[in-house]
Formats: sequence, C-alpha cells, structure tokens
Amino acid sequence: MRQLMEIAEDARRVKHAVAALGANDKNRGLRAIADTLEAHADEILAANRIDIENGCKNGLSDGLIDRLSLDRARIAGIAEGCRQVAALPDPIGEVLWMRKMPNGLNIGQKRVPMGVIGIIYEARPNVTVDAAALCFKAGSACILRGGKEAFHSSLCLTRLMRAALEAEGLPECAISLVEDTSRESAGQMMRLNGYLDVLIPRGGAGLIQAVVQNATVPVIETGTGNCHVYVDATADLNMAQRILVNAKCQRPSVCNAAESLLVHKDVAARFLPMAAEELRSSGVKIHGCPRTMDILGAAILPATEEDYAREYLGYEISCKVVDSLDEAIVHINAYNTGHSECIVTRDYASAQRFLDEVDAAAVYVNASTRFTDGFEFGFGAEIGISTQKLHARGPMGLTALTTTKYIIYGNGQVRA
Amino acid sequence: MRQLMEIAEDARRVKHAVAALGANDKNRGLRAIADTLEAHADEILAANRIDIENGCKNGLSDGLIDRLSLDRARIAGIAEGCRQVAALPDPIGEVLWMRKMPNGLNIGQKRVPMGVIGIIYEARPNVTVDAAALCFKAGSACILRGGKEAFHSSLCLTRLMRAALEAEGLPECAISLVEDTSRESAGQMMRLNGYLDVLIPRGGAGLIQAVVQNATVPVIETGTGNCHVYVDATADLNMAQRILVNAKCQRPSVCNAAESLLVHKDVAARFLPMAAEELRSSGVKIHGCPRTMDILGAAILPATEEDYAREYLGYEISCKVVDSLDEAIVHINAYNTGHSECIVTRDYASAQRFLDEVDAAAVYVNASTRFTDGFEFGFGAEIGISTQKLHARGPMGLTALTTTKYIIYGNGQVRA
Repeated sequence: MRQLMEIAEDARRVKHAVAALGANDKNRGLRAIADTLEAHADEILAANRIDIENGCKNGLSDGLIDRLSLDRARIAGIAEGCRQVAALPDPIGEVLWMRKMPNGLNIGQKRVPMGVIGIIYEARPNVTVDAAALCFKAGSACILRGGKEAFHSSLCLTRLMRAALEAEGLPECAISLVEDTSRESAGQMMRLNGYLDVLIPRGGAGLIQAVVQNATVPVIETGTGNCHVYVDATADLNMAQRILVNAKCQRPSVCNAAESLLVHKDVAARFLPMAAEELRSSGVKIHGCPRTMDILGAAILPATEEDYAREYLGYEISCKVVDSLDEAIVHINAYNTGHSECIVTRDYASAQRFLDEVDAAAVYVNASTRFTDGFEFGFGAEIGISTQKLHARGPMGLTALTTTKYIIYGNGQVRA
Repeated sequence: MRQLMEIAEDARRVKHAVAALGANDKNRGLRAIADTLEAHADEILAANRIDIENGCKNGLSDGLIDRLSLDRARIAGIAEGCRQVAALPDPIGEVLWMRKMPNGLNIGQKRVPMGVIGIIYEARPNVTVDAAALCFKAGSACILRGGKEAFHSSLCLTRLMRAALEAEGLPECAISLVEDTSRESAGQMMRLNGYLDVLIPRGGAGLIQAVVQNATVPVIETGTGNCHVYVDATADLNMAQRILVNAKCQRPSVCNAAESLLVHKDVAARFLPMAAEELRSSGVKIHGCPRTMDILGAAILPATEEDYAREYLGYEISCKVVDSLDEAIVHINAYNTGHSECIVTRDYASAQRFLDEVDAAAVYVNASTRFTDGFEFGFGAEIGISTQKLHARGPMGLTALTTTKYIIYGNGQVRA
C-alpha cells in the first residue's frame, strides 16, 4: 500500500509536467483512458463485484448498493464522460486581460493550473474517473480519496487510468488514489499544506462538515441544498405547481431538489390543495406550519424549526404560509444553505427583489431549482456545486479547477 | 465592551441592507467618513498618544512605534484614501455574462457582495480605515480585529466611522471593531462559520499561519514573500543591477521586496562583484553559496538552507550561483512563497519558460518585484496580496472582496 505522503510527493513532483501539457496531449490521454476502461471492463466488473459483495455483507442500503454498482453500460457512460471532457475547450493559457501601464509595464492575468487538487468523496466509483478527468484537463495532478465501500472499484479504475497515461508517455502520477482508507489518512489529507492547492469534498453534509472543520488547506465547500420554492401572490398557480413538483420529485436525492415550500397568504387557500394533491400522489409527506394545517387538514404533519432547516433528500417537504415577499426572503436567508432558490411570480418588482435579496448561488424566477448543474448551465462538465462564496459559487466546471497568475513584461522598470 | 458574538449578530443583521446600497449612498458614506476623521483629528491623536505611550512603556521597537504613530498628515492621508475608494467604480451589480440556453432559460452570472468580511491585522491604525472603506464600497459589512498595540487608535477611528455613517442615515453596524483583544477572541473569530463569509489576515507570517491553521471559515492567505531575482546568462547586467537593488533596497520591509538572488554561472564572475558593491553600499548583508563565496571572498556569510527559505524583510539577501535556467526554476519553485519572481534576460525562450514554469502570483521579465501592488497594477486600491490560489491570487482590489451569484430568468421551465 502506498502511503499518503508518498502519493503527495509524487503528485507535487509531477505537477509542473502536467501543467505544461498542451490540450492535444491532455485530450490524447483522456481518450486513451476511455478506451482502456472499455477494453478492461471485465477487470472493472470483477473488482466492483468484490465491493458489492462486501457491501451486501455489511448491510449497505439498496440505494448505496445501486450507486456503487457498475455494469457494462455504466462503464461505457464513464468512458464517454472522459471523451466529453477531452472535447471541451482547454481553460489553460487564456489571458483574461493585459494592459500597458503608464510606466510601460505590460501586465496581464493568465489562467493557469492549480497544481495539485484533492477530492474526497463517497462510495461512487464513477466519481473516481470523472474527477480525475476534469483535474487532468485542467492541468492539475489529483489525489483522490473515495469511500471505502467502493475501494476495489476505485483502485482498479485508477490503475487502468494510470496505465493508459503511462502507455501514452504521459505522467501517470497525475492521477493517484489514496489507498489507506482510515479516518487518520482523511485527516492527514486535510492538512497537506504545501502539497494540496485545494481540497474539494463531494458528498453528504457529514463529510463536508468534517472537511470544513478540520482542513487547513484551502477548501471549496460543496453541495448541501435546502432549496425553497416561493409561490408569490401573483403567481401563475399552474406554473407554480409544475415547478414545485419538478423541483421536489423529479430526483429528490440530489442537492438541487426543493426541500421547502413557501406560499403567499393571498393564494395559500387556492394553491396548497392543488400542490398537496400532486405531492401526495408522488408520495411526498408534508410538514406544514399552523396555517398550512388549517388549509390542508390533519393529513399533514406539523412543521418544526428543524423541518425548516432540513435537507430531506427524499419524499418530504416543509411548507409555510407567509404574509409577504419580505417574510419569504427573510425566511429563506435564515434557513437556506446558499444553494438554489426559486420564486414563482408574475410581478416584476417581486422578481427583481427576490433576485437581488436572496443570498444563494443560484436564484430563479419561474423555473425549477433542478437546473443548478454544470451541464444545464452550459459548462459541459461539473466537479460539484459550491455553496461558499470564495473562488467559485454554484456549479463548478473546468475553470473552477484553475487559478490565475499575473505575467509582467518589462524592459528594466524599477519602482520609484 | 461589546462581545464578539454581539458584533457578529449585528454584522449579519445589517449585511443585506449594506449589500442593497447603491454606489451613490456608499460613496456619500465614504466621503462623510473622510470629513469626520479630519474634523476629529484631535480626538484621534489623543487616542493615538495613549497607544504610543503604552508602546514605549512596553518596549516596542522604533519601527513598530513608527507604524503605530499618527499625525495630522497621516490622518489626512487616511481620509484621502477614503475619498479615493469613493471615486473607484462600484464593482457590484456587473453581469459578467448572460446566455439564453436552448430551453429558453436566461442564465447570467452577477457580481454581488460577500456579506460579512473579517480582517485580522497588526498594529497599524491606517488599516482600520483602509479595510473598512474597501469592504463598505464592496457592499459588505466588516468585522475588524486590529493589534492590541493600536487598540485606542482603532477604537476611536471606528467610533468616528460609525458616527459618520449613522449621521448619513447609513447602517453603522457595517463597520465593527472587535474590542476584546484576547487570544481567545481571535480564535473565536476564526471559527465564526455562519457569520463570516471570508476572513483575511494581514500581517506577518506568524499571524497568517495562526489563521491558516485554526480557521474553519474560508480564508484568503496573504502576504509572505520570499521573492527571487534571477540573472540569466544573457542578462543586461546593468539592468540586472538596477532591478536587483530596487527589488532589495527600495523598501526592504515589505512582502514584494527581493530576498534571494540567483545568478547564472556564465555571468556570475562579472555580475556578482557589481551587485555586491551596490548591495554593500546600501548596507545589505549577503549570504552566499560556496561559488558566490569563491567570487566575492570572505566578506560574505555562507548561505544555509534556512537562508534560501527566509523572508529577511531587512538588509540581507541570499545568493546562489546556478548552472542553468532549469536549476533556477527548480530552486524558486522549491523555496518561494508564491508571491513575486523576476528573471532578467535578453533571451526569448528563457523569458517564456520562466513566465510559464515559475509558480507564483506575479512573474516578471526585466522589472522589479516591487511592482506587485494593487495601485501599481491599476486596481486603485489594495486589501492585501494573496499568496494562495483560490479566489484571488496576487494583489487584491475591490473585486477580490466580492462574489458572484447566478441569476436565472425562466418562464415555467422544468427539468426533463
């Protein structure tokens, strides 16, 4: 088993070589990875079977076993993802601006690779390849630490990716997997100052909080979403119903799904029965405020403070009747996680105020929160959704994995 | 004494009001602050005298006493700084891009305020006003924690700034000073998750490391600079001498001053005596490698590993003769702090390789490292110089104190 420090030294050693690669070389590497994964699907499936058997023995839930499981179609999908990353424009080398200063210095800001990117994630073997492909295209070495439940799958995928790079004469240490899946190695990874330029946790709230609390390297906080749909007094109620049901039910397990419904008091008596019927037919449990309960009756549960703050990630929703747009905005800014928020309205001023005053990565007028996604936003890829305000906020594509440097062309200038 | 949590609650409460201010209101507030500080110069000087007397009693060095000391001219300079910030363009509200997606959604990325910005700094009263003015212009509330040596000065300045805002009908809680200067309150401030959107330490290496090691809120690491001047084989040696002396001696106490000289072996015998003469006449002690000592004789000190890594911030420099550009780049990437690096060369390929391969916030060809500064880069202001790769790298102007949000205009779109 390679130790974390050995992996970190390797990554730091090759980062300049990875940064120097042109798009042609990086794309050739990514296509080679795709071909290699498909050609060795049997090996991957064999490794994956060990993880699945262990998972069944250890009583993993059906949902987790499903996320963990690979088949030929999923492997083809992973390979196709690599080819799509190869097809994206290279973010590296772009000069964002260059100006000639009064003293004759030409100062420019250029997009350059991060260096070494760490990713900590849970038991999803596809993330092993997705994350490695994006980091490689962004010109950085990566150190991956996946959940132990997917360890054999991730190790096999990493071995094949490294072999593909090596066969192409590219630096195999651009991609590394942490083989020590102990808690200690995770903590050690969070403190790899001098080696890791950024650490990105991808996963549930527990993982993300552990990284935020313990990391001394720079972190991009991702993912938890307590997203609201607010139905304004002037909303088209049919549109509101469609958006609510889509935001809540289309894929309830993801961070951009709605977890809370706010309804203006003027339309609550008409809208809530319409909404409740659709939500119940999809099996969604409603946790309502007293006014919601007055309208919908005893069939719903009372909402607690905890309900307003919860990310259910399932078929549940909290619901509150508000007196005004102001109350809705205050409620959202108090309980949200800075992810995605939606107003349904016909009123110009309400729409503008909601866009201006709600503090979140993505604020919607008359559209489902489910669109917060790198592909839907036109980035062609996504490494995660940032819920912090530094560096990147919202869906992160390739450029979120880069940094900039200032380049200065002089002819002998000194400072007076 | 107001407790930190009380201050944090106040800042969080007013941040939306501060964010909503237009440029006219913010600029009016900044000009009112400038006028108020000048009108109350006597109060400021009286408070400053307490700090200076305490400092003398506690044996502060002359340099520290100088940094701490205010007079009428310095107060006028501080007020003028506020007026300059008022004159800068408002960074808030700019839509960086907006695109119509195939499904009809209009998705845009808009520059918005951070929210609440924390600044931890040392005993420089001017930073109290500079930092507050920049945060206010950037639409954020700020929580300032200055060094205890300048406490009375900073408290007086903060009181006057708040009074000026209040008199203008603007939220005075936009600007707060932490009055508890204990170590505990600093640690508490580093963990104000949910209140602080970013924490920026400004000061020496010890302060910055304490923040990096202990903060759980997002941090922008600033400031330490082990900057190199590399004199290539083809350098114009007179230019190299001018750049070196400027970078080392023009203001040795600052982070963009040079701390290390690398010289290509082909020009070492000619360049080092020229350089040494100028450096010695400015009183600079040289710590040299064995080859440097061979050339310059016993008058210089031997360089240790520690010398190559040191930020002297004074009249000392380390010096090494290298065999090649490659060796220079490897040395710099091993020892630098990611701040500012310079090559002096006539060779096109050497210049391009240095710009590409040296990993630092600012990389110079044929110009002094002393130019790494928000004003010199044309930003009109500076909150510090970031030496990390996330969010902002290099001199940070107003935009580094902002974030973005995605705004999405729909007409009923739901995700398929």
